[in-house]
Amino acid sequence: MKEGGSLRVPTNLGFTAKDIAKAVQRGDVIIVIDVLRCCSTIVTALANAAEGVIPTKTVKEARALHKKHPEFILAGERRGIKPKGFNLGNSPLEFSPQKVKGKHIILTTTSGTKAIISSKKAKYVFTGAFLNAEATAKATLKIAEWEGTGISLILAGTNGRFSLEDFICAGAIAKDFPTDNIEYSDAVSVALLAFQQARKSLDKVIRSGYHARYLISQGFKEDVKFCCRLNVFQIVSFLKGETVVPFITSATET
Amino acid sequence: MKEGGSLRVPTNLGFTAKDIAKAVQRGDVIIVIDVLRCCSTIVTALANAAEGVIPTKTVKEARALHKKHPEFILAGERRGIKPKGFNLGNSPLEFSPQKVKGKHIILTTTSGTKAIISSKKAKYVFTGAFLNAEATAKATLKIAEWEGTGISLILAGTNGRFSLEDFICAGAIAKDFPTDNIEYSDAVSVALLAFQQARKSLDKVIRSGYHARYLISQGFKEDVKFCCRLNVFQIVSFLKGETVVPFITSATET
Repeated sequence: MKEGGSLRVPTNLGFTAKDIAKAVQRGDVIIVIDVLRCCSTIVTALANAAEGVIPTKTVKEARALHKKHPEFILAGERRGIKPKGFNLGNSPLEFSPQKVKGKHIILTTTSGTKAIISSKKAKYVFTGAFLNAEATAKATLKIAEWEGTGISLILAGTNGRFSLEDFICAGAIAKDFPTDNIEYSDAVSVALLAFQQARKSLDKVIRSGYHARYLISQGFKEDVKFCCRLNVFQIVSFLKGETVVPFITSATET
Repeated sequence: MKEGGSLRVPTNLGFTAKDIAKAVQRGDVIIVIDVLRCCSTIVTALANAAEGVIPTKTVKEARALHKKHPEFILAGERRGIKPKGFNLGNSPLEFSPQKVKGKHIILTTTSGTKAIISSKKAKYVFTGAFLNAEATAKATLKIAEWEGTGISLILAGTNGRFSLEDFICAGAIAKDFPTDNIEYSDAVSVALLAFQQARKSLDKVIRSGYHARYLISQGFKEDVKFCCRLNVFQIVSFLKGETVVPFITSATET
């Protein structure tokens, strides 16, 4: 591994998506975190047997791709709301097995899908949420150990600003790295402290955040509640080419 | 106040000194936090009756100022160590009443004094540490309410990198803002959570941080211990012109 004979995996935390470039440069395994709601929606869709989720940067690009592939589901949001003509918004509750099973989903969101796309040059890009925190921690640690790289937890945030829920989720993921194998950076350590304090009333703490309050004001209270649940899914979401798919070992061999 | 009729003071947190410019632009009351050790040293010096502490950016500037005023004490560090010919280093334990009472101190440190100087264009600049967290919170809130501005907690960090101890100290200060009067930003909220979790074993948590480990490796274990104590001093450190002095109400009228 990289640090003078140490076998411990160094971890880093990017407070906003601006920190992606450095993480890619370091060769880190990247975990993009966007709890409300992009990464929660992605893992829910995959858990409900969607074939894959294709993140796109703009509404225009999403529409163009849908024109080519009208059999795909067109989903996403701007300012939290489903754009005109889209099949689904960005509410994980909409991505039921009835709607998504066996389907590809084109997804464009304000912050999350952009952060995933910005990370594309990295060899390994995962998306993380409370819903699959533990599974994500375990899979990414294995890969980082195997590859001899670090892990970067990237907070997608909200329109470029720091997000409380993404930071606390970084702590939730960090909690499931076995401490003997990991070198916590200062930022990862404090995210872990914040999570340990917040977990007693995770739902209440997340609701105090800026973006949760906005979503609740727009009628998405149930979404916030849904996204605050820990380790509901064992699915690990992995960007393979252009598409986020469930991670299986063979995916690392492509 | 500024936010649509609300009387609550908005708070912000700058993860590194790079965020100072925005805080100045907003017109915020600024609290520069550098626990290890600049701001702990400053408040200790003032508590031990130093006349004032003059932060300088470079060792060269500090030496030049000392040449003009040989009666001042020349103090500071680079890489934690006292530069050649300096009277004192940057260890708060050195700033005893015997040495500093009635004296002016020229101080230059790697991160803290630079962050203070970078904040100079703001009307109100304070320096914060665990040693005077509560006193700093109370004084700054009063001023922000009076002036109708926000408060920015700026983490000086270590050589431009994020510091665990400064973040947790931001939470310690935020804890002493009465919640009814304050609008916590997401970043301030998570700093508060981290502090609440860390306070049970503050010394141990701080010692796990990158900079504390470096200082301890350089023989400054007692410094780290000294700086981790909460609310030892009621002194509020305030930048008046070029010099950090104890804050008293009349200081706001200049």
